[in-house]
Amino acid sequence: MTAHWQPPSIPPLDEAARQAARERQRQLTKPPGSLGRLEALSTALAAMQATPRPRVCHKAVLIMAGDHGVTQAGVSAYPSEVTAQMVHNFVRGGAAIAVLARQMGARLRVVDVGVAAPLPPHPQVYARKVRPGTANMLQGPAMTLAEAQAALAVGAEVVALEHAAGLDVLVLGDMGIGNTTPAAALAAVFTGHPPRVLVGRGTGLDDAGLARKIAVVEQALARHRPRADAPLEALAAVGGLEIAALAGAMLAAAARRVPVVMDGYIVTAAALVAAAFRPAVRHYLIAGHRSAEPGHARMLEALALTPLLNLDLRLGEGSGAALALPLVEAAARLLNEMSTFAEAGVSDRPS
Amino acid sequence: MTAHWQPPSIPPLDEAARQAARERQRQLTKPPGSLGRLEALSTALAAMQATPRPRVCHKAVLIMAGDHGVTQAGVSAYPSEVTAQMVHNFVRGGAAIAVLARQMGARLRVVDVGVAAPLPPHPQVYARKVRPGTANMLQGPAMTLAEAQAALAVGAEVVALEHAAGLDVLVLGDMGIGNTTPAAALAAVFTGHPPRVLVGRGTGLDDAGLARKIAVVEQALARHRPRADAPLEALAAVGGLEIAALAGAMLAAAARRVPVVMDGYIVTAAALVAAAFRPAVRHYLIAGHRSAEPGHARMLEALALTPLLNLDLRLGEGSGAALALPLVEAAARLLNEMSTFAEAGVSDRPS
Repeated sequence: MTAHWQPPSIPPLDEAARQAARERQRQLTKPPGSLGRLEALSTALAAMQATPRPRVCHKAVLIMAGDHGVTQAGVSAYPSEVTAQMVHNFVRGGAAIAVLARQMGARLRVVDVGVAAPLPPHPQVYARKVRPGTANMLQGPAMTLAEAQAALAVGAEVVALEHAAGLDVLVLGDMGIGNTTPAAALAAVFTGHPPRVLVGRGTGLDDAGLARKIAVVEQALARHRPRADAPLEALAAVGGLEIAALAGAMLAAAARRVPVVMDGYIVTAAALVAAAFRPAVRHYLIAGHRSAEPGHARMLEALALTPLLNLDLRLGEGSGAALALPLVEAAARLLNEMSTFAEAGVSDRPS
Repeated sequence: MTAHWQPPSIPPLDEAARQAARERQRQLTKPPGSLGRLEALSTALAAMQATPRPRVCHKAVLIMAGDHGVTQAGVSAYPSEVTAQMVHNFVRGGAAIAVLARQMGARLRVVDVGVAAPLPPHPQVYARKVRPGTANMLQGPAMTLAEAQAALAVGAEVVALEHAAGLDVLVLGDMGIGNTTPAAALAAVFTGHPPRVLVGRGTGLDDAGLARKIAVVEQALARHRPRADAPLEALAAVGGLEIAALAGAMLAAAARRVPVVMDGYIVTAAALVAAAFRPAVRHYLIAGHRSAEPGHARMLEALALTPLLNLDLRLGEGSGAALALPLVEAAARLLNEMSTFAEAGVSDRPS
């Protein structure tokens, strides 16, 4: 087990590239500002990728998968065995994210960082199980510090491999029955909001289930007293293996200047952890959507990120991020492929 | 000139197909409702196309282009000659909508229904000029009733041709320097809101330009007194050739059960006209986005449509609709391509 993970250093945004991209935006055949948020997104991509002509050609969706001991407390509408079943469904092409990755021209990879059940080898699955699911955070830490580090390192390693294969933009998603509970606990640690405003119904809890889930998060926080200035310890106490891998993946992507399109509740909780290690990671994050899970908006606010989509999605798997990917790609393509007024022989307005 | 256009009859939505699609949605491998607005969109597509398995494979972007005599009154930041220049830019691939149509896998066609300048023949351009731009609505009607009918018929004819070539979903856009002025006038007629809340800065007017544009719309309405219960007369008095063609295209698409993804301010003004002819056309319209042009939200409210995107776009050309197209396609593909719990061997939650 690689337990020597350290948060990587994150390069500053390239402001010269952003400025050059802005200069080009101004010359494109459209009224200035008429592409709205896509204009700022295109120049942000330039600053992240350190080029005035950012690219969104090579796209990968990485789904980090893990199970959660806290499901013993009845915090999910679905049984834990669904995590492994859904991994099969991802790679067989029948899950929502598989459909969306196909449509968007992104390759799909699943990382088993902590699925409880054994998974057969598959070319689209990275077998990197740190342990078969976390322990129940109500009875002790979800994992050891060494396990949390190992899961962070899995995220970093997989991004390094995917980057070597060609990666312009990374889409991150999650799979893990029960994982909105650790995500809510981490959100409470890093946003300072109380569990009752952060905890939602997940995949479909009723009122009693919701009350139980809030109580579980409150108990876990009371037991472990995780602190925002000790992110590794917080992750180990109340986090999840796939959440740790997501945080490690984000940091590794940002270290390589690869923009990350974030999915919803779980991925954003991981972003809060990543930002606690390295605040500059935020500059490489694009919020794909705002989830229907009510606490998600608070988490995005804490990261100062504005989501691209708001479609009441609450599936996870990276689905909201994949749906936002065409907008990110469009921002880059418009900047790159549109003609300037001079090239097209179109009259600019008199200035 | 075909001046015998009549609004077509619009078939009712197929509620049996919608119900069958809902039944399938319920069995897909995801928590019920977790795909948010895309679930209702997928079943709406089923009801429009009259099949439980709607398709978004064959996609066309149609841009209706025309010029406007009212530009003489100084209502636009750009000169009229830009309309023809941009048509060249569309078919040469350098305009925003050309980039987006390529990305989204949609064919792009431009319809010259009233561009002032002569346009050379081009395989992507339908040459259907009714007249070389409208007259100045401050001095008389923008066009005759026969011309308005002819422009409506052009929209219908082009949709018939495109439908024969294979058309699952139609994306509509506009090009016409000065056309936010007639669009605002029509919006005032059909929403009942005063010009000052409907008129915006278009491609970039300053404060004095905005005040002038509001006054122009007020004067045109005072002169012609167009009425919501006489849409052909209103269109002729204060409309535009491309706006008429857009309305004709929407009605023709709805008549053939082809869903229409609407762009922003101009296309939505055309939708108000179309709905005045046949209120049922609304059921076949999907609002691609909400424009930054402030009056657009009022127009969407009047049609009871909720936009998919809200990215502060205000370009026109069909750009906002093209950006929403992947969401519409995703809705259909998720419904069609996702596995059911039974197919995937995934445990549904205990009910």
